[in-house]
Order: sequence, then structure tokens, then C-alpha cells
Amino acid sequence: MRNLSALTDLYQLTMLNGYFKENKLEDYAVFDLFFRQNEQFSYSIACGIVQAIEYIQNLSFTDEDIAYLRRLKLFEEDFLKYLKAFHFTGNVYAVPEGSVIFPHEPILTIEAPLLEAQFVETTLLNIINHQTLIATKSARICHEANGKKVFELGARRAQGPDAAIYGARAAMLGGCSATSNIYAGKAFGLPVIGTHAHAWVMSFDSELEAFRAYAALYPNNCTLLVDTYNTLKSGIPNAIQVFQELKEKGYTPKAIRLDSGDLAYLSKEARKMLDSAGFTEIKIMASGDLDEHIIASLKNQGAKIDIYGVGTKLITSANMPALGGVYKLVELRPKNKDKIYKIKLSNNINKLTTPAMKVVYRIYNNETSKAEADLIALQDEEIDCKKPLTITHPTERWKQHTFTNFTVEKLTKLIMKNGKLVKPLPTLQQSIAYAKEELNSFCDEYKRLDNPHVYKVDLSDKLYTIKNNLIAEIKDKNG
Amino acid sequence: MRNLSALTDLYQLTMLNGYFKENKLEDYAVFDLFFRQNEQFSYSIACGIVQAIEYIQNLSFTDEDIAYLRRLKLFEEDFLKYLKAFHFTGNVYAVPEGSVIFPHEPILTIEAPLLEAQFVETTLLNIINHQTLIATKSARICHEANGKKVFELGARRAQGPDAAIYGARAAMLGGCSATSNIYAGKAFGLPVIGTHAHAWVMSFDSELEAFRAYAALYPNNCTLLVDTYNTLKSGIPNAIQVFQELKEKGYTPKAIRLDSGDLAYLSKEARKMLDSAGFTEIKIMASGDLDEHIIASLKNQGAKIDIYGVGTKLITSANMPALGGVYKLVELRPKNKDKIYKIKLSNNINKLTTPAMKVVYRIYNNETSKAEADLIALQDEEIDCKKPLTITHPTERWKQHTFTNFTVEKLTKLIMKNGKLVKPLPTLQQSIAYAKEELNSFCDEYKRLDNPHVYKVDLSDKLYTIKNNLIAEIKDKNG
Repeated sequence: MRNLSALTDLYQLTMLNGYFKENKLEDYAVFDLFFRQNEQFSYSIACGIVQAIEYIQNLSFTDEDIAYLRRLKLFEEDFLKYLKAFHFTGNVYAVPEGSVIFPHEPILTIEAPLLEAQFVETTLLNIINHQTLIATKSARICHEANGKKVFELGARRAQGPDAAIYGARAAMLGGCSATSNIYAGKAFGLPVIGTHAHAWVMSFDSELEAFRAYAALYPNNCTLLVDTYNTLKSGIPNAIQVFQELKEKGYTPKAIRLDSGDLAYLSKEARKMLDSAGFTEIKIMASGDLDEHIIASLKNQGAKIDIYGVGTKLITSANMPALGGVYKLVELRPKNKDKIYKIKLSNNINKLTTPAMKVVYRIYNNETSKAEADLIALQDEEIDCKKPLTITHPTERWKQHTFTNFTVEKLTKLIMKNGKLVKPLPTLQQSIAYAKEELNSFCDEYKRLDNPHVYKVDLSDKLYTIKNNLIAEIKDKNG
Repeated sequence: MRNLSALTDLYQLTMLNGYFKENKLEDYAVFDLFFRQNEQFSYSIACGIVQAIEYIQNLSFTDEDIAYLRRLKLFEEDFLKYLKAFHFTGNVYAVPEGSVIFPHEPILTIEAPLLEAQFVETTLLNIINHQTLIATKSARICHEANGKKVFELGARRAQGPDAAIYGARAAMLGGCSATSNIYAGKAFGLPVIGTHAHAWVMSFDSELEAFRAYAALYPNNCTLLVDTYNTLKSGIPNAIQVFQELKEKGYTPKAIRLDSGDLAYLSKEARKMLDSAGFTEIKIMASGDLDEHIIASLKNQGAKIDIYGVGTKLITSANMPALGGVYKLVELRPKNKDKIYKIKLSNNINKLTTPAMKVVYRIYNNETSKAEADLIALQDEEIDCKKPLTITHPTERWKQHTFTNFTVEKLTKLIMKNGKLVKPLPTLQQSIAYAKEELNSFCDEYKRLDNPHVYKVDLSDKLYTIKNNLIAEIKDKNG
């Protein structure tokens, strides 16, 4: 991984300089990284935590960085000397990569010296915002694909190289079966797929000749792109002819691919033509500006599509290209003083933060094994599953729910202690398996596209009391 | 720059393998990179060409790449050996970084051995799609800001590290005055800005104390964030108090920043409060989900904003997060044979390509010095400015326009010849100046947000004839 230490907002360093000058080097702070409610995603898949931790592990300014900062004439030598030795010595708590998470739940919590905890904000947000966005989009798309394979094909439309590489990683975590991106395939050990483009067909004198050449190359792995000239009149008939030639030679051709036009109509016609020619096993892959909504519509129209190829709208999360994650101070522990809970007020209620160092508990119904609610509690609160548990809506206090036959799981885990990993980071393959389990533990009602059932995320009574007392105190003080 | 040679779609390599097996190593091809019409942007700012060229210069597979490709079991040793020596030996033509360009105009043209020309598709598109998108979004935002400064603040919401770094670069090309991103500032020599966050204020016992500490640190460069608790009742009064203290000490404080709430109302109230306190020179910076449309609305409401801070919606181009650039084969030159023009047909008329190796001419009115139309012509077509020039709409042939007092400029320039740069790449500062000139050469009617005037982009008669003959020929052949 590149050294991304300089990938930050300048204000992190002007603030660090201030904390340094104010002698706050030994103050500790707790920051939470979380997402707010948004209009598109009812749930998210936590992703990028592994790269975020790698960033923290590598955190260190190069001599070149220091020389650059000196040239800005904003910092004195004592602070630059401090930065030269700067690295991360704190604790990191996070939900496992691939967890299903909900708005306002801390995905990652940093407990560290104030300067270190503040500094990592920009890059942690950059990495986790991006990967969680794409993993979530992928999960939504794969859910609508309903067991059919989804291939990630977005490299050319991603917002730069990292967006293609880590976007492919996130798409796989969200449920895609393969990616066309070789760099990502190599970096993360992912299945890669790919056949040929229109240019292949155009570079031959005829489509038939192009198909024959491709079939000769990959006779047992032959997927032909049939829409270069005319899908129904030329592409599919030519593909069928080449498939017959392959079959006669004892090979098993694989699929056709539709990449333009009316995919519902064309896929149904293609299925008929292939079936009539005896190629009932040949798969139909379709691509072209697909997302979860188009896939739902194609299914409703009875489209005959076996594999969805998804590019632009997955790799950019086109209808919501930023998840808007934030990183907020929730607790301060000045040297030799009691801890102070911190809250960010706002006229926008969705922007109000929840103070204190917290953990997220997930409540599972013992009969169905399904997740039924999350409870955000103080770090030291334990839940006794043998007693009934009543949880209360974080603002609508009349909304309560009591669980009797349940199990809880603490989602929040310690990842780094004093700047060191407490155990190895999961492989992507482990995280993919985990994400799949996680998604299966939620009823489909939470995952549907329109008006999904709202999952309960409540605050423990202790946390609720702390939050409300703090709001009252600040309103009192600042008007 | 990292070696991005493996950042490609697998199908590029399966196709290359095919061309290799078909003995097409000495066939040449011409590919155009261009954008299609889209719903949002009437024009684009070409950006990323510099990084695209750097990618081409660095193109070379590592031993590790080759070992990975071997493990895929798709390629034989002769092809892998060919790949080990693979590099770019062709010619590259492009419009200058920062050019104003229109749909269907070739931004970049590759004339190279077929295998090389095919291979670079994915990464060229990835880089140029992304940077052109953000530069264009930035130009639109800065146009609405109408001379007020725009700061790029999106690092935390960008789609990964590259999107933050190259997004900041592109935003500056599009007209932003500064970025908060230190990495980009260092890499490209950009002005960087930044003050403090809400966490700074929250980490002190009171807002006033936090403001005083920040003012002590940067007394002549003091911008205070006033919305942590209550903008009008606490933030601005505290800021004014600290500004007065600074003034008494002989310093010149700088600005306040609003980051939430109703920016129109708050900025007007803030202006009144600052002016009443004698701080008529203090600037008001505003941020919070701004884009060109919100800025237009704030102006209409008489908001008193001197500096716009723009994050998420610029760095992701939120309302259109992909520009949909494509890379299409337009000419093939098989070894020892005549060149063959190539076209990609489609039921979608917007997806039809234009064959042949082309150049773009821009026609300037000699009286106004403004650009009035572009003409896409064959590479060897010259235009005589002494004779009247009549151009014809590419499909509506009754729409013609005749220019008499005009100058033309050939936008398409040779950048690389036989794999080598013909002259050094421009610095970003040169490109920023160029983009500014380019934007000034277009009337505002082309740049407005709603119903912009449609800029004329026509085909030369020769090119029109080639295109139509080719369509007829293919329709005849493929039905």
C-alpha cells in the first residue's frame, strides 16, 4: 500500500499544531465513524476496515512530506519535529468487515491520544465511505439478482484507479461472483472474467469470422458478444452457427452476451432461438446500465437472463455516489482529569451525535435465528440474555419492544491495542463468507427496494440519559 | 506513479491473445476516446490526459503480473513471453489538457499496432473519464460562483484515495481556487487551505476558549467555524469577540465559516452582525452539500457568501457520477492491405460511432474572438480561412451555417510519436491557465445550467460521406 499519510485535509494539521501548542499531547479522545440516515440505503455493508487499518499501521510522514509542510509556513520546527516521529499508538474498535450496519451505529471507534485520533479522520472516512458505499450497492444489486450471478465490469467508469481496484473488492464483498478487473483479481485473489469486445468483432471482415476465431481460442469457455451489428438478425444466428461447429468438435460452448438494446425483449427472443437450436444450456449474459432497479424491472418482464454484467451504476453507486459517513468526537479524557462526554448539536436532527464510548449489540430471535434489533450501549454495559430485555426508540420513547427468547452478539470488536493488531486481519475470502452470513441473518423485508421495513436501532437507557443531560447542559450554556 | 499495467479488463488480454494467435501483430488500428451526449453537461473540460500519457509511458508487465496471468490458465507461454516485452510504440493525438470539448469529439486518438491500441482502452477510459468528469463539474460550479472563490474540500467523500487526489487536481483545472487536500497540494503544487473542525471547538471547555486558542495560533489567518453549538446566538458573537481582541493587538482576522443550517438566512444575518461590529472586511465562507444549483439558488436569495466550500457533490459529481466516455475502433490497417474504416452501429442513435482518423477544428468569429462551432474532419483535411466555410448538421442536413470572417484552430495535437513524447507534458499550472482561456472563449449561453445553447459540432462533407456509405454497406451485409 502507498503511504497515504499526506492524504488529509490541511485543517487536521492546523488543529494538531494547535493541540500541540496547547500542550494537549497527553489528552485522550474517542471518535466514532458512522453513517447518517440517507434516502437510498436502509442498511449498509461495512467495508474497507482492512484498508483503513493498513493505513493506520503505515501512518508516518516522509522527509519529503515534512519538507513540503515546512514550505507552507504554517508550522514551527518543534511541531514538524513532532510530526516526523508521529505514528498511531491508540486502540481501534470496529465491526467485522462485511457486517450489516445501520445509520448512527459506530462502524469504527478510535480511542487514542487526541492528536492521533483527530488526524486519521480524513483518510479513514475516504476509505470506509467509498468501500462501504460500493459493497452496499453491490449487496442491493445481488439481492435483486436473486441467486443469478452478477459480474463487476466497471473499471473504465470508476472514479480513478483506486475506485476501480477497491471498488471491485467491495463489489465482491457485497455479493458479486467475479470481476473483470485483473489488478483487483491479482491483489485480492478474486475470480476474474472476460471475453471479447465489439472491437474484436469489428477488427475482422465479418462477425462470423470473428466468432470463429474467438471460439478457436477458447472452445470450452466461449461467450460471444452478439450485438455489434444486429442482435437478432446477425449476432445470435452467427453465434448459433459457431456453437454448432464447436459442438460437432466435442466442445461445450458457454454463453452469449447482450450489451445494448431492449434486454427484456432481446433476452426472451435469444432464449427461444438458442433453445430451438438445441442450446438450452447456453447462458445469456446481459449488461448495459444495469442496477438493482433495472434488474427488478427485467425480472418483472420475464427477461431470460442468467448472468448480469454490471458496470457504471455499481462502481460509482450512481444514484447515491457518497454515503456521507462522518467521524465525530464523542469523549474527551484530558490528562489527569475526568472524562467528558461530547456531543455535536445541529438544527438538523439527523446530524445530532451520540456521546460516549459505545458498543453495538445485535439481538437475535432464538426461534428464527434472525436479527431483530440493535442496541447501542455504553462500552461497559452487559446484557443478560436470561432476563427479558426492553428497548426503547431513541426519540419516540413510547415505542418499546421486549425480547424474551433471544441471544445478543457484541458487534464491536477490539482490532488494535496500543497501535498493534490484536489478531491478523481477515482475508477477503473470510470477509465475503461473513458478509453472506450477515445478510442471511436479516429478513428480506429489510432488504427490499421500496419502503423497506425499518430495522430497530435503539440506545440503552444509560446512554439515552447521558445524551439528553448533555443536550440540556449545552443548550443551557450556549443558548 | 504506480504501475497500472494490470489495471484492465480481462477481455483486453483474451482479445490480445486472439490477435496474437491470428498473427495480427503487424496490423495497425486507430481508436478514438470520446464522450456521448448526456443529460447534464453541455460541454466538458478535457482532463487527465497527462496521467493517461504517463500510464502509456509506464506500460509494462512485471514478472509478478506475468506469473499471475500464467496461473489463470488462459494463455500459452508464447503469448506470455510477448506480454513480458509489451510496451507502447504507437502515436497519440489529443486535445490539450483543459480544452473545452463536446460530445462525439475525439479527445484522444490512438494510432498504434492493433494489440497496443486495444490494450490501453480500460485504463485510458478510467483516468480520463474520472478527471474530465470532475473538471467539468468544477467548471460548472465555478461558473455559478461568478468570480467568488470556490474551495475543494471533498477528500473524505471521494471514491477512494485516487479520487481524492486526482479529483482535487481536476477540480483546480475546472476553476477552484484551492484544495484542502495536502497530498494533492504537494503532488501538483496547488494552494492548500484549511482551518479547524467542530472537534476543535468541542475539545475545549467553551467555544470562546476554542476560538481564542485558534486565533492565538494563526492571528493573521484566522477563519472561525461558527456552527458547532448555535450559529447566531453563540458562534458569531464569540467570533466577533475574538476578532475584536485580535484587532486590538494589531492583527487582521479573516473569515467565518458556516457549515450547516440555512446558508442564505444565516449568511445574511452574519453579514449584518459582522458589519455592525465594524468587520466589513471579514469574509463569509459557506459549505454544506453545495453544488452549482444550490449556489445559483443562494445567489438568487441574496445570500452574503464570499467563498464557497464544496465537498461531496464536486468530488463525486453527485448528480452524474460517470461521464460514460467510450473508446472505439475507427480505422484498421491490416498489414500490406488498404485501410478499412470502422463503425459501431447501434439501435441507439447516440451510440453510433464516426469512422476514420479525425481531427477537430474550432471556428472562431474574428470580430468577437468567440468560438462558434467545431468541425470534425478527416486528418488530412485543411481549412482555408480566406474562403467562406459552410458546415452542415451531422444528421439534420438542412441545418447549415456559413462562416466568412473566421479563424480556425486545429484542437487535435500529436502528443506521442512512436511511443515517445514529442514535447514535455504541460504543468498543471499551464493547463489551468489554458482551461481558463478556453472557457472564456465561449459565450455564457453555452454554460448556463438550464437549456444551454447547443454548440454546433458538425462533420466535414468528406467524413459525412464516408460514414453514410459505411452504414449502408454494413446494413446491406448484416441486415
